[in-house]
Amino acid sequence: MSPTTTVPVVENILKANDHLARDNRDLLDSTDTVAVNFMASPGAGKTTVIVRTIKALKDRYRIAGVDGDIATTIDADRMAETGVHAVQINTGGACHLDAVMLQNALGQIDLEGTDLLIIENVGNLICPASFQLGVHLNVLIASVPEGDDKPYKYPTMYRGVQAIILNKTDILPYFDFDMDYFRRGVEALNPGLAFFPLSAKTGEGFDAWITWLTAQIEAF
Amino acid sequence: MSPTTTVPVVENILKANDHLARDNRDLLDSTDTVAVNFMASPGAGKTTVIVRTIKALKDRYRIAGVDGDIATTIDADRMAETGVHAVQINTGGACHLDAVMLQNALGQIDLEGTDLLIIENVGNLICPASFQLGVHLNVLIASVPEGDDKPYKYPTMYRGVQAIILNKTDILPYFDFDMDYFRRGVEALNPGLAFFPLSAKTGEGFDAWITWLTAQIEAF
Repeated sequence: MSPTTTVPVVENILKANDHLARDNRDLLDSTDTVAVNFMASPGAGKTTVIVRTIKALKDRYRIAGVDGDIATTIDADRMAETGVHAVQINTGGACHLDAVMLQNALGQIDLEGTDLLIIENVGNLICPASFQLGVHLNVLIASVPEGDDKPYKYPTMYRGVQAIILNKTDILPYFDFDMDYFRRGVEALNPGLAFFPLSAKTGEGFDAWITWLTAQIEAF
Repeated sequence: MSPTTTVPVVENILKANDHLARDNRDLLDSTDTVAVNFMASPGAGKTTVIVRTIKALKDRYRIAGVDGDIATTIDADRMAETGVHAVQINTGGACHLDAVMLQNALGQIDLEGTDLLIIENVGNLICPASFQLGVHLNVLIASVPEGDDKPYKYPTMYRGVQAIILNKTDILPYFDFDMDYFRRGVEALNPGLAFFPLSAKTGEGFDAWITWLTAQIEAF
């Protein structure tokens, strides 16, 4: 028997958020701060990618971080260990950052003294895609163990970003990950999207990502 | 500098859902159908665990399936390949199943002819934890590549389940996964919780899970 499709459900509570996101963007632009929002499933390696990115760029840019989690300061603590100022937002249950939360966090950061603001969103492939923050770049971190079908199953997230990192390539030999199938899914949703397969653990492939990110930052 | 904690946000829109969840439970009980809700992060291996579980139990029970995804019927199709009737719910963006969606799906299933209903929730470690469906058992599927810190970062999910499967143990040698740290986090949130480390790919550890699940089904 074949499955039956039922009950599409759509949420539409986003207009007020978009207005605040524009305010955030105006504030960031007024201080020449470029903001990058990293989104991913839980355990894709967001914090490891971010920490390695900060280390690669911190001699060139003055960096600050904002970290969104339901609970704990584990990730912001890891950001702070690199020497940057990291602000933790605990959403207390909400499955994404929104523009109000970021606005509050921006109030705790010396934006005039910040060239690059790195935002780590809540670990979730769904909700963060719907809530604009007012950033300059949205980056999705996928990972090999999640499987090659994720573009097909989470299309909104894959459509709304300017780059995809595919993390944990060092363990590709141990997974049935069909790279062509993954890439075809991405291309169908977001043609020509910048794509960086890499391992934040070993550093393999990381230089291409840093080169691209630096060019983007310089372009703003 | 140490991070600063700001902006707790709490949602409270759940009472109507809980009422409908009780209706679902009454309906399931009236037909002697035991329902199990599987929740997990994207890519934890929900469908692989479910397909293997169905194959292990389908000679003993009459099984039907409900699959929740934002888009596609990939997972329900995989369930249906085992020969069970599988109903796909496409949430169209919502990050969880809720009691209304399940109620609609139940209307498409011959519950009188179903002993065991297996529900695959939307891939998400946050939202599904807040929406009761009216099922008999909630099971969380964690996986080794997600990392050992997930109980600490997603406490609501870890608190609200009757069992945890830790999937993908076959690739433990390739990850820095501290099993004691993971278990301590689980125990702090949900003491004495049934715990099944296994590989749905190789079958390692699967018998213990099936034995436990069968005992639970028989107890209702």
